[in-house]
Amino acid sequence: MRPSGRDLSEMRPVSIETGFTKHAEGSVLIKVGDTHVLCTATIEDRVPPFIKGSGLGWVTAEYGMLPRATNTRMRREASAGKQGGRTVEIQRLIGRSLRAGVDRVALGERQISIDCDVLQADGGTRCASITGGWVALRLAVNKLMKAGDVISDPLVSPVAAVSCGIYAGQPVLDLDYPEDSEAGVDGNFVMLGDGRLIEVQMSAEGATFSRDQMDQLMSLADKGVKELAAAQQAAVA
Amino acid sequence: MRPSGRDLSEMRPVSIETGFTKHAEGSVLIKVGDTHVLCTATIEDRVPPFIKGSGLGWVTAEYGMLPRATNTRMRREASAGKQGGRTVEIQRLIGRSLRAGVDRVALGERQISIDCDVLQADGGTRCASITGGWVALRLAVNKLMKAGDVISDPLVSPVAAVSCGIYAGQPVLDLDYPEDSEAGVDGNFVMLGDGRLIEVQMSAEGATFSRDQMDQLMSLADKGVKELAAAQQAAVA
Amino acid sequence: MRPSGRDLSEMRPVSIETGFTKHAEGSVLIKVGDTHVLCTATIEDRVPPFIKGSGLGWVTAEYGMLPRATNTRMRREASAGKQGGRTVEIQRLIGRSLRAGVDRVALGERQISIDCDVLQADGGTRCASITGGWVALRLAVNKLMKAGDVISDPLVSPVAAVSCGIYAGQPVLDLDYPEDSEAGVDGNFVMLGDGRLIEVQMSAEGATFSRDQMDQLMSLADKGVKELAAAQQAAVA
Amino acid sequence: MRPSGRDLSEMRPVSIETGFTKHAEGSVLIKVGDTHVLCTATIEDRVPPFIKGSGLGWVTAEYGMLPRATNTRMRREASAGKQGGRTVEIQRLIGRSLRAGVDRVALGERQISIDCDVLQADGGTRCASITGGWVALRLAVNKLMKAGDVISDPLVSPVAAVSCGIYAGQPVLDLDYPEDSEAGVDGNFVMLGDGRLIEVQMSAEGATFSRDQMDQLMSLADKGVKELAAAQQAAVA
Amino acid sequence: MRPSGRDLSEMRPVSIETGFTKHAEGSVLIKVGDTHVLCTATIEDRVPPFIKGSGLGWVTAEYGMLPRATNTRMRREASAGKQGGRTVEIQRLIGRSLRAGVDRVALGERQISIDCDVLQADGGTRCASITGGWVALRLAVNKLMKAGDVISDPLVSPVAAVSCGIYAGQPVLDLDYPEDSEAGVDGNFVMLGDGRLIEVQMSAEGATFSRDQMDQLMSLADKGVKELAAAQQAAVA
Amino acid sequence: MRPSGRDLSEMRPVSIETGFTKHAEGSVLIKVGDTHVLCTATIEDRVPPFIKGSGLGWVTAEYGMLPRATNTRMRREASAGKQGGRTVEIQRLIGRSLRAGVDRVALGERQISIDCDVLQADGGTRCASITGGWVALRLAVNKLMKAGDVISDPLVSPVAAVSCGIYAGQPVLDLDYPEDSEAGVDGNFVMLGDGRLIEVQMSAEGATFSRDQMDQLMSLADKGVKELAAAQQAAVA
Repeated sequence: MRPSGRDLSEMRPVSIETGFTKHAEGSVLIKVGDTHVLCTATIEDRVPPFIKGSGLGWVTAEYGMLPRATNTRMRREASAGKQGGRTVEIQRLIGRSLRAGVDRVALGERQISIDCDVLQADGGTRCASITGGWVALRLAVNKLMKAGDVISDPLVSPVAAVSCGIYAGQPVLDLDYPEDSEAGVDGNFVMLGDGRLIEVQMSAEGATFSRDQMDQLMSLADKGVKELAAAQQAAVA
Repeated sequence: MRPSGRDLSEMRPVSIETGFTKHAEGSVLIKVGDTHVLCTATIEDRVPPFIKGSGLGWVTAEYGMLPRATNTRMRREASAGKQGGRTVEIQRLIGRSLRAGVDRVALGERQISIDCDVLQADGGTRCASITGGWVALRLAVNKLMKAGDVISDPLVSPVAAVSCGIYAGQPVLDLDYPEDSEAGVDGNFVMLGDGRLIEVQMSAEGATFSRDQMDQLMSLADKGVKELAAAQQAAVA
Repeated sequence: MRPSGRDLSEMRPVSIETGFTKHAEGSVLIKVGDTHVLCTATIEDRVPPFIKGSGLGWVTAEYGMLPRATNTRMRREASAGKQGGRTVEIQRLIGRSLRAGVDRVALGERQISIDCDVLQADGGTRCASITGGWVALRLAVNKLMKAGDVISDPLVSPVAAVSCGIYAGQPVLDLDYPEDSEAGVDGNFVMLGDGRLIEVQMSAEGATFSRDQMDQLMSLADKGVKELAAAQQAAVA
Repeated sequence: MRPSGRDLSEMRPVSIETGFTKHAEGSVLIKVGDTHVLCTATIEDRVPPFIKGSGLGWVTAEYGMLPRATNTRMRREASAGKQGGRTVEIQRLIGRSLRAGVDRVALGERQISIDCDVLQADGGTRCASITGGWVALRLAVNKLMKAGDVISDPLVSPVAAVSCGIYAGQPVLDLDYPEDSEAGVDGNFVMLGDGRLIEVQMSAEGATFSRDQMDQLMSLADKGVKELAAAQQAAVA
Repeated sequence: MRPSGRDLSEMRPVSIETGFTKHAEGSVLIKVGDTHVLCTATIEDRVPPFIKGSGLGWVTAEYGMLPRATNTRMRREASAGKQGGRTVEIQRLIGRSLRAGVDRVALGERQISIDCDVLQADGGTRCASITGGWVALRLAVNKLMKAGDVISDPLVSPVAAVSCGIYAGQPVLDLDYPEDSEAGVDGNFVMLGDGRLIEVQMSAEGATFSRDQMDQLMSLADKGVKELAAAQQAAVA
Repeated sequence: MRPSGRDLSEMRPVSIETGFTKHAEGSVLIKVGDTHVLCTATIEDRVPPFIKGSGLGWVTAEYGMLPRATNTRMRREASAGKQGGRTVEIQRLIGRSLRAGVDRVALGERQISIDCDVLQADGGTRCASITGGWVALRLAVNKLMKAGDVISDPLVSPVAAVSCGIYAGQPVLDLDYPEDSEAGVDGNFVMLGDGRLIEVQMSAEGATFSRDQMDQLMSLADKGVKELAAAQQAAVA
């Protein structure tokens, strides 16, 4: 019943390739089905003004889509002169999500910037960005620890994200673009690897949903995130 | 235990004053405690390009804060030359939420723009904007129906929103600013008046939450939205 | 003969409500007829670079109109990405006018920012902003004096402003929007409460005016400003 | 007593060179003392949207200063990414002033754009722009009349502008930069060649002025504008 | 003597992978040593206004660098709000170069947009963009011809580009970043596959060069472009 | 055969007027035929961040065109809100070219900004800007040396630029606008007065060129630059 023939609770194949580019402190190409995102982590010695001198670290994120990552070409944001609302919303989510898995005291007063650039899109780019972004973050933190700049591991648990939605009346896991564009209700769940919740964003346009449905979606998300966390751990092992 | 002395499930006093300004097709000053938002509705004969000729209507929203709505002055966005990420995120939420309560066929090919301007902020401005914005929308639609421009009522049910969060370890309803700035977990629930869900946005910064807690927050939200829907209905009666 | 039925030299009813919002050091809702402007004063410890270290204070102003303050919705300047020419011109006038009534040595090296936001417009918004802005400034300065941060009163005399113009061939005081949009000549007079002139801006589009007419307009303005100064004094008494 | 040794009512030498550049329909280099402004007029077949189809013509203006027209280099506005408040204010004044001397029915549905670019500044650039801009406008209109595109002369009377102010306690005509930067009160008068008023902008920063002084300044302005109008007529003869 | 150990006239290894992403009409990942650029071609039915109705086609290009394509993170241009001067210069060069190899009559009135996004930079990104961009263009044109939308092949000859410079006193081919940052003279040569010149950009900062040296560089470039043209032909065979 | 009747290797008449405006440390009006550019040099005590503390000087340039310097009016870049790609490209070229003739150690840690503003355009504005800009730079450096702020002359040799191209199949020197708009190949050569090359930019749109043609163009350029260098030397003598 799903366009891809997947089961309702079946994720697309996930691959995580580390070291995809050479300059960044962490670099990852994550593929969730046909959604491909390049995530890099940059370590910087400065922090935002509002935490200067606090001893706390910071993790932030930026998100972009190459103009032809999608089926029709989108205007390049650099040439349009500003990031669109969707971009701003997504990069705020990525940053907030990753910070939730960081012990900012242990990180020390430095910033790690995660850049998530979508090379090819097929639904779920923000979730792939969070999941891949965490691996890039992990690699960068490993460098800091190896160099002795950070002693105690600031990454307690992996952070991963998955989308869920109600497609053709059924709760489904990990929507691809054909599902995403038809679903009356869909959203994203960000969790720690052990299932604790960090962020829930469920939204309906043209439909509503019940608490029961919400509960079913959370069960699906729980399953998906655990699979993603395993893939993350394997990639950095 | 709450700074305001309220019970865990107690909303702040709500007042909705219609006709606060004279030019708009709908004009409302909503007060949720010390959060005061002026919401206006403007009927326009044009629709966005992507639905031109479809016969469908559109509802959109813009959000702003007066520079000194807050405790310290914020830079005026018009002078900064762009809307910040938070503003963009909020106005997209308001528009999406209100559209979920609209029968766009019944509305006909026209646009209603909701402007939500925060005169005074004390937490929960986006929820107050949705709740007040719906009343402004209701007033504007009433004008269309009275004039015979719209025959069948496109507003099936009120749309209202309330924030919930975990403050000092306890799930609480309708956070004010002192709570909001301390809560490790908080979010917003947008619902129809009968409790059907439209949007859930729960996010943690510096903590996580469990499915049990999520469930408790949803029960609080359900209570709050029903009270708000009653206030909305009273205001437009 | 005036659309409102007022005498040629009759102002609209003026009301000045202090403490309209709670966060600002001075907050005023001024109503001049159907023109309603929210004016707030913010005290800041910094001054513009060009007077740093001079010991002198500064007063500046920003002006905005809510999108639906007017009969048809105007595009939100924050979303358009810049302040329009009219806005820039008005806020420069407000700042210049208020500074003319301030002893900047007595104020000391600090800045007071006046925000004037038009909630509802019916002509004369810049004059109402100056008149209401002065009251907000007065309230903020009172706080500084009460706290002992300022010893000698830097506000020597109230600053108020009124519009005048030639409508249907007759010099009239305090134009409302229907008059303003028809008048071939109109302008604004800013004065101290005792009638000394601070700023005169008289301009014709589609007509010209003589020195005699200029003189008659100045007499009207003198009358109007004295009434406004009395209302200002009453509001802060 | 004036830094330049001029009498209180003495203008600086004025020269108006037509045909300074070759492409524009009207091109003028006006020198008022050391203030040099290049004014060009461009005839365009389009008009602004708000008068499309009305049969009326439009005159508009833009103003700029070369970065090193002044004693210290100012940031290039094109590189700063926006026109400053002063620029916007000035170009609105120029456009409004020139329009006041145009019979827009006689001009027909076309637009003439006046560009005023300050090559060298020494006070009074906006007045020189209006005075020189009118000559450029006159030249362009002459072309239209010669070509038979306009039958009845739309320029009834020259438009010219001069600054006046109170310098060292004395009303003086045509302030140069050293006077302008010291004057407590100064402003601009725009008039038709016969002395009828179009625009009065008098403003005080750090002083006030009386109606008597206002009257003296108007007499000075009247003298100055008449001399400028004679220079304009000579230039286009 | 070269940091990489290459001979003076030796190019880095070149690989061209077609079909790297799935949505674009042409998609290529070109690697010139450690410089990796993703080039996509998009066919659009519109053309720029200045050739509308001419029957001629258009080829244009945009260029971007991912923030961490380089050794230190560069600010994302979309977030900075504009494309930098270097970016603008490069994308104008790419578009101009590719157009020189196109028979715009044969292409017909349509536009092909080439997006060149640098995933990893090690010198020579603009040359790799042109070389890879041509392959993406070739693939897109092949689709048009296969579909019968274009009859006669508009691509007469491959377009390729290579950098040359004077490094440590010696003319060298295909500078990598360590050479590029030290070279006193360097530039780019764009040619057709048969050696005819399209664009020469040679520039010195901190040195000068002679006509003899210019000649030597042109011989190197000729060699390099011929190798690149062979690689292009192999990739699309 | 040239529209102007000039010989293939004949430059347009060149005039260089120093002291055209009074405020700048160097001010030059250069006329190359009907191309007129005002070049000013400003000495500033600051340098760009990347050379702070290095003891090295910097020379930078900005370029602009008055809106009606051309045959049809171009939009003012300050009002458009950004500099176009062509402007950015040109001002980068001017700065780079002038720096190539400067001994930055001898200049000392200061910046000289060259502003090149085109009053009238007839082809070759960037070359005239470089040639005139160098004279402005020379004048400013002379002031520094006269004041004893610079001891050893940092300007070793004049820098001048000329355009060449293939017009109607023939290599020609110093293209004017009618030639420039028809030439299939054209470009710019920047050299020191003794013929050493600084920058070569040759580009074809709609044609290609051979190494032989390139050589002929370089001979023409050599002749032109030597004539320009003589004019520069005469102007500053």
